[in-house]
Amino acid sequence: MAIRTSTRSTTSSASRGRAGARGEAVADPVQQAWPRRQVRPLGADTLASVDAWWRAANYLSIGQIYLLDNPLLERPLERDDIKPRLLGHWGTTPGLNFIYAHLNRVIREREQSTIYIAGPGHGGPGMVANAYLDGTYSEIYSGIDQSTDGVRKLFRQFSFPGGIPSHAAPETPGSINEGGELGYSLSHAYGAAFDNPELLVATVIGDGEAETGPLATAWHSNKFLDPLHDGVVLPILHLNGYKIANPTVLARIPEDELLELMRGYGHTPHVVSGGFDGEDPALVHERMAQTLDMVLNEIAEIKRKAAEGDTTRPAWPMIILRTPKGWTCPAEIDGLPVENTWRAHQVPLANARDTEAHTRILEDWMRKYRPEELFDETGAPVELVTRLAPDGELRMSATPHANGGLLRRELALPDFRDYAVAVEEPGAVSGEATRTLGGWLADVIRDNPDNFRIFGPDETASNRLAPAVYEYSDKQWNAEVLPVDEHLARAGRIMEVLSEHQCQGWLEGYLLTGRHGLMNSYEAFIHIVDSMFNQHAKWLKVSRDIPWRRPVSSLNYLLSSHVWRQDHNGFSHQDPGFIDHVVNKKADVVRVYLPPDANTLLSTYDHCLRSVDYVNVVVAGKQPSPQWLDMDAAIAHCTRGLGIWEWAGTEVAGEQPDVVLGCAGDVPTLEVLAAASILRRELPGLKVRVVNVVDLMRLQDVREHPHGLSDREFDTIFTSDRPIVFAYHGYPWLIHRLTYRRAAHANLHVRGYKEEGTTTTPFDMVMLNDLDRYHLVIDVIDRVPGLASSQAGLRQRMQDARLHARQYTREHGEDLPEVTDWSWAGSQGHSQESATERTDDTGSDNV
Amino acid sequence: MAIRTSTRSTTSSASRGRAGARGEAVADPVQQAWPRRQVRPLGADTLASVDAWWRAANYLSIGQIYLLDNPLLERPLERDDIKPRLLGHWGTTPGLNFIYAHLNRVIREREQSTIYIAGPGHGGPGMVANAYLDGTYSEIYSGIDQSTDGVRKLFRQFSFPGGIPSHAAPETPGSINEGGELGYSLSHAYGAAFDNPELLVATVIGDGEAETGPLATAWHSNKFLDPLHDGVVLPILHLNGYKIANPTVLARIPEDELLELMRGYGHTPHVVSGGFDGEDPALVHERMAQTLDMVLNEIAEIKRKAAEGDTTRPAWPMIILRTPKGWTCPAEIDGLPVENTWRAHQVPLANARDTEAHTRILEDWMRKYRPEELFDETGAPVELVTRLAPDGELRMSATPHANGGLLRRELALPDFRDYAVAVEEPGAVSGEATRTLGGWLADVIRDNPDNFRIFGPDETASNRLAPAVYEYSDKQWNAEVLPVDEHLARAGRIMEVLSEHQCQGWLEGYLLTGRHGLMNSYEAFIHIVDSMFNQHAKWLKVSRDIPWRRPVSSLNYLLSSHVWRQDHNGFSHQDPGFIDHVVNKKADVVRVYLPPDANTLLSTYDHCLRSVDYVNVVVAGKQPSPQWLDMDAAIAHCTRGLGIWEWAGTEVAGEQPDVVLGCAGDVPTLEVLAAASILRRELPGLKVRVVNVVDLMRLQDVREHPHGLSDREFDTIFTSDRPIVFAYHGYPWLIHRLTYRRAAHANLHVRGYKEEGTTTTPFDMVMLNDLDRYHLVIDVIDRVPGLASSQAGLRQRMQDARLHARQYTREHGEDLPEVTDWSWAGSQGHSQESATERTDDTGSDNV
Repeated sequence: MAIRTSTRSTTSSASRGRAGARGEAVADPVQQAWPRRQVRPLGADTLASVDAWWRAANYLSIGQIYLLDNPLLERPLERDDIKPRLLGHWGTTPGLNFIYAHLNRVIREREQSTIYIAGPGHGGPGMVANAYLDGTYSEIYSGIDQSTDGVRKLFRQFSFPGGIPSHAAPETPGSINEGGELGYSLSHAYGAAFDNPELLVATVIGDGEAETGPLATAWHSNKFLDPLHDGVVLPILHLNGYKIANPTVLARIPEDELLELMRGYGHTPHVVSGGFDGEDPALVHERMAQTLDMVLNEIAEIKRKAAEGDTTRPAWPMIILRTPKGWTCPAEIDGLPVENTWRAHQVPLANARDTEAHTRILEDWMRKYRPEELFDETGAPVELVTRLAPDGELRMSATPHANGGLLRRELALPDFRDYAVAVEEPGAVSGEATRTLGGWLADVIRDNPDNFRIFGPDETASNRLAPAVYEYSDKQWNAEVLPVDEHLARAGRIMEVLSEHQCQGWLEGYLLTGRHGLMNSYEAFIHIVDSMFNQHAKWLKVSRDIPWRRPVSSLNYLLSSHVWRQDHNGFSHQDPGFIDHVVNKKADVVRVYLPPDANTLLSTYDHCLRSVDYVNVVVAGKQPSPQWLDMDAAIAHCTRGLGIWEWAGTEVAGEQPDVVLGCAGDVPTLEVLAAASILRRELPGLKVRVVNVVDLMRLQDVREHPHGLSDREFDTIFTSDRPIVFAYHGYPWLIHRLTYRRAAHANLHVRGYKEEGTTTTPFDMVMLNDLDRYHLVIDVIDRVPGLASSQAGLRQRMQDARLHARQYTREHGEDLPEVTDWSWAGSQGHSQESATERTDDTGSDNV
Repeated sequence: MAIRTSTRSTTSSASRGRAGARGEAVADPVQQAWPRRQVRPLGADTLASVDAWWRAANYLSIGQIYLLDNPLLERPLERDDIKPRLLGHWGTTPGLNFIYAHLNRVIREREQSTIYIAGPGHGGPGMVANAYLDGTYSEIYSGIDQSTDGVRKLFRQFSFPGGIPSHAAPETPGSINEGGELGYSLSHAYGAAFDNPELLVATVIGDGEAETGPLATAWHSNKFLDPLHDGVVLPILHLNGYKIANPTVLARIPEDELLELMRGYGHTPHVVSGGFDGEDPALVHERMAQTLDMVLNEIAEIKRKAAEGDTTRPAWPMIILRTPKGWTCPAEIDGLPVENTWRAHQVPLANARDTEAHTRILEDWMRKYRPEELFDETGAPVELVTRLAPDGELRMSATPHANGGLLRRELALPDFRDYAVAVEEPGAVSGEATRTLGGWLADVIRDNPDNFRIFGPDETASNRLAPAVYEYSDKQWNAEVLPVDEHLARAGRIMEVLSEHQCQGWLEGYLLTGRHGLMNSYEAFIHIVDSMFNQHAKWLKVSRDIPWRRPVSSLNYLLSSHVWRQDHNGFSHQDPGFIDHVVNKKADVVRVYLPPDANTLLSTYDHCLRSVDYVNVVVAGKQPSPQWLDMDAAIAHCTRGLGIWEWAGTEVAGEQPDVVLGCAGDVPTLEVLAAASILRRELPGLKVRVVNVVDLMRLQDVREHPHGLSDREFDTIFTSDRPIVFAYHGYPWLIHRLTYRRAAHANLHVRGYKEEGTTTTPFDMVMLNDLDRYHLVIDVIDRVPGLASSQAGLRQRMQDARLHARQYTREHGEDLPEVTDWSWAGSQGHSQESATERTDDTGSDNV
């Protein structure tokens, strides 16, 4: 890790001393962070530098795609100088380079802390080229210095075996956005901007990406940005007109319509168009430079007004940049138009090695950038180019915001033990796990007022984290507020928008720039962001192996309103499969927790908020349910990740149990304990062991997951030869998958969710899936040798109990009192506190 | 199935004889299908009917949420008349009912074939109420007739154990959109409109739903609609201001901004606002009625112009309807505002049974609708209400378009055998599977010009279905076209937009209204629609059990550009997990196919396009690769779903093999055959069996999937006790999961994708995951008893071969010729036709 550190901090404007340099009086920190500048022509010298940078970046981009050798064309290009497999994408690259060059100028002039989000991830060669030109690349990757040999290595490694990916990726300095799967640049940008009041987030949105759903709604993020305490997102919609093989929608609607769309999104659009039909780039440079200065002045004005107390939502400026796809590549190849068509999307000249003529086309194309003017005799970029780059951390490829671990501060976490539910004996009190967690999270918010946020798709209240979490913070909202509204404010720690994509994108951007947070969602609908999870997990997996990428906070999910309590919303709201999806990713980066009650949830979440570089999936109920463990026991249980609940079983010390009842998840745990109480009453001689699993990855083999148990440990808990009846929160397959190598696997019988359809009471729901207490007892009878014959009567009574329970719900519309009022303490002849205190399913938070 | 059939067809305007009724001269079919009407006040009678319908629908909606008995309030409401669990959502319902009532009027007057898409699925009680009022519900559900007892049953069943779901769902007549997971109404609407030139698709979009990504981009669907050959989507953005616990973005931006947004989306917006602060609904009825007439006249004008040859893209009208959330519910309850706040979202009065005062609030609320004016003494709706409803299939709840199986015509499928790749001996010729399929699909398009479409996120060319599929059709596109564009037209069978959400939503809408299609996508990015697949699979699962829902065409995926050939795009483009996601859904509705070559792909896809009520996932490569089976063998193989490839093995008849090499997927098949050829050469005495699997569900137990094998069948193919080395396309877990109950499972060793990171040549990619031929040979040596000791030399040579292959790629940037040029025929000493003809990875379609 060797990023050169600027003498000036990017986060403290007090130390900048910028006023003298600009010859203006600096009145206050806001004006210092967001200065105004006169808008005027570039002047010959600056124009020359901007253009030189652009040419150099373009040259280096093409070189990466095409060349193995002869990097600076010191001799005529030969066939063998060209890579045999031409990979990478030119189409979007000159536009990305153009924007980068212009941003460089204004960053230098304004000392503007800036991060660059490149939505068109295909522009990987461009992002690498810019990082190379400003020196960051050589600082980080010591083998690739600013010399002819360095350029050769830079070219060769690109999308080459053993080298770097063809897209912007974790390997790319300055990037927090992998553009492989399009759609998230603008959400990432807002995530980066939150709580970074002096940061400019320049965000290039490709016109292909703009067609995606997540991007289309991300424009509305500006209703959630606080001009005072957050940074500024500058969207640059880069219309080059084509995607892979088609024109793009936004490039092919009339400009008036496009401007209305942008104004409708709440922006003030500025159009820069040029480069078509061979227009001199110098003219386009002038237009872009003046627009950028105007836009930054508008931003400065908005920032000033906000500092002065103006609370109206600003119409933030944005730029529409129209340039030809593949700008500056050959206009025509083999008689077909290339520049400004979809043919320039990837490798405009696909067969550069095939014929001498094609090789000459490539050479002519590359020489058009006049490399001899851009690199000196050693191969280093000349001063004409480099003088444009800002210094140190002001370089966009070196900004610490794009390597968020550098800026990450540990959270101040209040002691979660202080929020414990008092549990004197197991199951004697009732509690709502997420509501308890909400109390702790409220104080996490209080103690971390500028680097922790909670994200949710309009479900924070429904998931019962609220109202507790509103204690020290409101929901951030910058659209109209009416008197009837509650808990809305221009600044707040809680972000709510009805888009899981937005929530996830904001959170990712927030984490990758060094902060902390969590996302809460209904369990079923978290599948909406399956693919975003994929990309983030892959990002983390790769980042862990890149020494200069510092650890970032884990991405924490809290999935509530889960499958077993979506009886009323029905089949469409039932899906526990996100866990299955997650465990396909590298074991290094995924963790899954199913705390059975409030205290285990507190302990689990404390752990999650302290962790780095993971995706933590926590599934927890919001409905009132029995509390099993006091805080000490909960901590011990969570530390082990799974364990035998001796108080629940009927084991005899020193003997093997007759049967193991396993459970993972709050509803399965309740049903297993109810089944255990029936067995204790009906078959007192049966030695039953109850095992609860919090950390699902403990079931896996230690060779497959770092949390996994050794076979010996596993056998000690589950036995190697006794029947195991396992009640699981999700699809039963997963438990088989996690345990298929265990000796006990042949004896393992799993009950879980089966996609059976809809029902409308909680117990009817578990019965429909054969996960209910009565059926678990039947499962035990059917599996413990001898019981099937000796306990036919009990088996029949269990069948009758199910039938009776079902009939009762059909008649009364609610579950049988003997089921809903059941408590562990009561079943043991103990006192029973609040098990009958049911508040479920009639309140307005049941949505 | 007993939908009353209208005497008038909804699809043939010729039979309508509408002109006389309206007293206008009808010039042509377009004017007949889309008539103009004078915009004028409703008149007292019509106004009374519209309002009566609305009141009746509101009354019936509230009754469903609250009442067990006393349905028409023939006596004072008592506590025990009220359900103990109050489920369902009132907030959006009065708006849905209002729109429905007004549409009824215009449908009657214009005989306008109309389908109603209710985006806010929470409005389930409203959709049921409307279907009950127009008689459809009683025709379909014979137990629920139009009587007091029928109303009682209607109320009781709603979100009640054994009853119906609380949302619009398959059980709801007239619905094709389950609104549980929000975001897809507008995409579904356009899918319904394609190729239905006389259909009006009235689409209510909730302002909560409007915040989702998929909905935000779906507005742009209007650039893909052909005014001449497609129907009309009328979006009605219903702003009631709140979602679960928050205001909504679009309700809280200035109206000018909202209008600009809608114009930016290409629409002509019309605003209807009313009902606030106790405004008389009669005034709002008048505004809505006049707006609806104006809008339908605008539509008629657009249709007329299109028929006359006007090809400009129209700015289709849309309606912004602002009404209070929970309109007409109590303004205040217990001192808190309810109507027009988020408190009206679900059950505005949550505790109606708790106190006498609350029970009175409910009774007063319900009596406000004056049920005695709406239902006669038998409990049937009075003529004042029913005269508003259209007849027969013009009733929106009875339209056959919402029960697409009624309209579905079988595809005319050209004989796929005619498109076969000639395979004289296995592996002797090379072919591109998807390109071959494209040739057949072109003729499917030719032979089915109005009920088959191909959808793709800008990847139809990249996946190499194009250019073949352009032979008889272009891509449908109604934005600007430039001279450089190719294959774009206002009407076409191929739909391309860079949004998997849009593609999936369009296809679902198209299928559910009785047509056929497929979606092609990069394998990795199909996860973007994981949750949409979930909802569609659940819809199919439930629909299969509803007698009046007729089978619809299967949803067919073609996943190409798959994990093993995303070496160049890298890690972000590698994800074979959609298969894992799919198999969590009910076995009844999911099918997964991995055809190993072009002929098996043809046979598989012919089967898929003939099937109904499934989701078929087909994964197939686009790159040139060896062709294994001639068409007869391919058909036989696909019919069995899996089979022993005797020509590839070295078995001795009547003896058990020493080892089984299994494979599923094109790249694993290639590597397994290459491994088999090495084993044949190096260990000629080893009895090797090669098994290829096309239909992945064959691996499962027949008790778990209808395609599953019995244990005996499985053992016959895989043996019960020999080592099996299985090379699988996806995550190796899945093969274990599918086979964990088999006797052979203990001997099963699976190689698959491991999330190991990036590399940039195809063979390096398979080596990174240990799925390569050399490693498969090592796996055999390590697992067949005796070989580890006797074949240490061969094992070392395999290790060396891998090392050499890796070194070669590092040096040359491409794979070793001996690997890429390998052919089965060559390895057997036969002739070799085109195995060396590689065109991969340098063409511009490599994206």
